[in-house]
Amino acid sequence: MMKPVRIALDAMGGDFGPEVMLPGAARALERGSDIAFSIFGDEKLIGPYLAANPGLAAVSSLRHTDVAVRMDDKPSQALRAGRRNSSMWLAIEAVKKNQADIAVSAGNTGALMAMAKTCLHTMPNVDRPAIAAIWPTVRGRTIVLDVGASIGADAQHLVNLAIMGAAMARIVLSVERPTVGLLNIGSEEMKGIDEVKKASRLLREAALPNLDYVGFVEGGDIGKGTVDVVITEGFAGNIALKTAEGTANQMAQYLREALSGDLLSKIGYLLARKGFAALKVKMDPRNVNGGVFLGLDGVVIKSHGHSDVFGTSVAIEIAYKIARHQLLGQIREALARSHEARAPKLSGASQPATAPSQS
Amino acid sequence: MMKPVRIALDAMGGDFGPEVMLPGAARALERGSDIAFSIFGDEKLIGPYLAANPGLAAVSSLRHTDVAVRMDDKPSQALRAGRRNSSMWLAIEAVKKNQADIAVSAGNTGALMAMAKTCLHTMPNVDRPAIAAIWPTVRGRTIVLDVGASIGADAQHLVNLAIMGAAMARIVLSVERPTVGLLNIGSEEMKGIDEVKKASRLLREAALPNLDYVGFVEGGDIGKGTVDVVITEGFAGNIALKTAEGTANQMAQYLREALSGDLLSKIGYLLARKGFAALKVKMDPRNVNGGVFLGLDGVVIKSHGHSDVFGTSVAIEIAYKIARHQLLGQIREALARSHEARAPKLSGASQPATAPSQS
Repeated sequence: MMKPVRIALDAMGGDFGPEVMLPGAARALERGSDIAFSIFGDEKLIGPYLAANPGLAAVSSLRHTDVAVRMDDKPSQALRAGRRNSSMWLAIEAVKKNQADIAVSAGNTGALMAMAKTCLHTMPNVDRPAIAAIWPTVRGRTIVLDVGASIGADAQHLVNLAIMGAAMARIVLSVERPTVGLLNIGSEEMKGIDEVKKASRLLREAALPNLDYVGFVEGGDIGKGTVDVVITEGFAGNIALKTAEGTANQMAQYLREALSGDLLSKIGYLLARKGFAALKVKMDPRNVNGGVFLGLDGVVIKSHGHSDVFGTSVAIEIAYKIARHQLLGQIREALARSHEARAPKLSGASQPATAPSQS
Repeated sequence: MMKPVRIALDAMGGDFGPEVMLPGAARALERGSDIAFSIFGDEKLIGPYLAANPGLAAVSSLRHTDVAVRMDDKPSQALRAGRRNSSMWLAIEAVKKNQADIAVSAGNTGALMAMAKTCLHTMPNVDRPAIAAIWPTVRGRTIVLDVGASIGADAQHLVNLAIMGAAMARIVLSVERPTVGLLNIGSEEMKGIDEVKKASRLLREAALPNLDYVGFVEGGDIGKGTVDVVITEGFAGNIALKTAEGTANQMAQYLREALSGDLLSKIGYLLARKGFAALKVKMDPRNVNGGVFLGLDGVVIKSHGHSDVFGTSVAIEIAYKIARHQLLGQIREALARSHEARAPKLSGASQPATAPSQS
């Protein structure tokens, strides 16, 4: 029998704190995830909920702290005030100490990333972290990274993102050999950042076994689901993500206005409510809640700050799946293999005679 | 009485060439724009249309060329094969020679930009061109630039984009003092590209008279219409634009699927068709057709390659408005004023004693 997945839960993060984090955890359990929780936060708020929910209490340990990172804390403030003793830090540290397999927090992204970097450090062969988003598409879901952890990326970092994103897609999307595209701005020769072009060459030459590199994709390809994994540096990736969310909201508002204009439209809307319910499910951002911090020696899941109980349970279930299938170990291996394969090239030798031995 | 606006029309560009460019021109005339057209292209295709449309023929001159840039020509190919004699080049050159006030083409963007740069050159105080898009928002329209002309931007170029975008917003959006935001990725201290931060400082310090700089905006603010003008470098801007278009298409597909599922939804859709017609108008990209090339010594409008007659007429009407209100002259003046104002600072003098005299 497999051991339960050990999830460290920052109960105090997000706009609603324990009010949604704990019921979210309970719901993930009810839906069948085999989890043991380490819960970090204020016992005055958490204790009563656990007392009333023996199912969750039975698989949880509680570590009290009354220090919590606020949603508007700047990363440096959060580190100064909350390093070592905030619920956010303690949840991440549990992963570091191998007391948990993965951490989940709905706390503010900047502080969470700063703490995760400080506590966990980057993994071998990676020089900076990334945030991967699960993006709904007309064909299903696509993993997009980096959506805002690091600004700018050299070619090697983009290749690392491809390797990490593909490993995540295998687990989250259940695709054996995910297709990967590099985000660019058209195929005209004068276009494209040099490092993006170089990354494309590296990915073609490497012919990595665990991913199928298909070339450049454009912004419009993300929503089409053209590839399983879209790679970009964090500035453009964050702007793409926020712009897409904004456009979806804009369309929803247009739709509401259109269907509240005249009486027939209103009646039509009522008749079509089954269709609209299906639409609502498709457009529901809660279904893809959970930004995954990759590139660190330990995985942290960022649940959306506004998430409700359902959204929280989705983030926890993604954490469960990722830890259960050992994403971290898979990324480590894939990066090491890729690093070994290119080592001879980097040292300038034309023959692989100087490659590190595969012990 | 004002003279008509002189528009140079590349009749051969786009997926449909003269088939949509000429009826588009005719429609813009019918809708009241006071235009004289210089039409460039194949007289065998253009002549018969003009013969059958005396209204358009009366205000048009035709210059024959049988060289046309293809939609899949690379910029370098287009320049090699079509410099000096293609319909695209000749339309741009008419602006250069002051035989036209503005040029319109639906030809491929890369080739059009390469030719526009080669023929017109950048204007004083600007080192690279930009493409401005008119973006539909829930509050109206927003100007976004650069959406793909130049990759990367230093702080000074971002300031220039703000000045050019604001001048365009005054004309196209009829706003006296447009609000301007710099696209960035959140307000956390660790985030943000250095040049974006520096541009923000410069814009605050400059306190330019013709625009109201409001600070950073995020991707989600574009569709909300938070500001009249959104400034970004061309890589992120292009990705934002394409991602938004992709998301709008995705939402439209979700909606079609949702309303064709069960019988009641289908009936509801029929009843609500007035509402949906309104929605369709709002989502119709033809209403904002026309990418405006700025920063060159002459303005070129890029109509979408797939545009139909209506979309083409919109692009021509935007060209008409921009030329009628002398966007180019307004940009030149605003850039010169801004350049003079910052000249003392750049030279390190604390007193404006060394500022160039305002002759």
